[in-house]
Amino acid sequence: MKLYDGGRAPNPRRVRVFLAEKGISVPTQIIDLGALEHKSADYAAINPLQRVPALVLDDGTVITESIAICRYFESVKPEPAMFGRGGREAAMVEMWNRRLELNLMLPIAHVFRHLHPAMKEMEVPQLPAWAEVNKPRVMEFLAFLDRELESRAFAAGDAYSVADITGMIAVDFLKAAKLELAREFGHIRRWHSELAARPSATA
Amino acid sequence: MKLYDGGRAPNPRRVRVFLAEKGISVPTQIIDLGALEHKSADYAAINPLQRVPALVLDDGTVITESIAICRYFESVKPEPAMFGRGGREAAMVEMWNRRLELNLMLPIAHVFRHLHPAMKEMEVPQLPAWAEVNKPRVMEFLAFLDRELESRAFAAGDAYSVADITGMIAVDFLKAAKLELAREFGHIRRWHSELAARPSATA
Repeated sequence: MKLYDGGRAPNPRRVRVFLAEKGISVPTQIIDLGALEHKSADYAAINPLQRVPALVLDDGTVITESIAICRYFESVKPEPAMFGRGGREAAMVEMWNRRLELNLMLPIAHVFRHLHPAMKEMEVPQLPAWAEVNKPRVMEFLAFLDRELESRAFAAGDAYSVADITGMIAVDFLKAAKLELAREFGHIRRWHSELAARPSATA
Repeated sequence: MKLYDGGRAPNPRRVRVFLAEKGISVPTQIIDLGALEHKSADYAAINPLQRVPALVLDDGTVITESIAICRYFESVKPEPAMFGRGGREAAMVEMWNRRLELNLMLPIAHVFRHLHPAMKEMEVPQLPAWAEVNKPRVMEFLAFLDRELESRAFAAGDAYSVADITGMIAVDFLKAAKLELAREFGHIRRWHSELAARPSATA
């Protein structure tokens, strides 16, 4: 088994934090995104979509998409449960992981990719107007999230889950996009600081 | 239990096709997207993100996000399995459902939402330039998908799964976005016509 990791980018980090929470260690090879190594022919043979991370199993099966990789490891080592216990909880984790991914991480990524000078070669063409459209969407979702987190410890309920990993990394990603977490979002700040204090957060 | 459905839009249809494949029937209320009923105060009380579909359980739990709703029903009625059997297959279904959603359905949605006159009030502001950026991305992914489908019956392997539902509906969504499935994509055409011939497709 081998994990193709992408270093500092948000998606590879989701898998590393997940593995740290599970206490799983996997042989890893770093793909240098800055050097566009994910666009190389060697890596395209592993993932034709040229994105990281990718997990190659011993039988040659290639699993891409961070959450698919995490789900695979959940089946290999079910404890601690990171995708919920039972149908209702599993649905809440799925819902919140998606909400945090599609309504927070993705709009932040659009702001970052379409405005940041460092993304000029990665995001062609950059459309600053599209980044600007996404800025208020990020802020609206953060306001909603802050209200939600008033009444519970974690994103999807009373237990830590993969949705918290997505949320923590999305909040950290604000900085790269030059966006700020407003001071008034105290519930997000409490939640994020607790997640960031877990040993897994530095993975 | 009650399902808030959104009629013709792609996401509500994903849940309806899924329920038809499972043979599950659920009391349903239609939310009229054309009349912006999803933006009403009544519906925002159910899903503050103002999107359809949403499932309300008897205990009051609200589940949004189509795939989270499908996953809930998978736990209620596991057969036929729509999210894969065993860890490896579940990971492949997750991977392909995400690939089809994030790299096909979502770029098609951007083309539709940012170009179509009917979306003028729903997508504010419309950015035609962003739609144009997404057009070649749709075509690139379709070329990749066509090569992949040469060697197997369904999106994620030898068994029908929720990834096929996402894929079928994404391909159908091309028309709304005024995009064409090129004649040369014979494997996609074979796959799509088999999916469209299932009784569930008309749900």
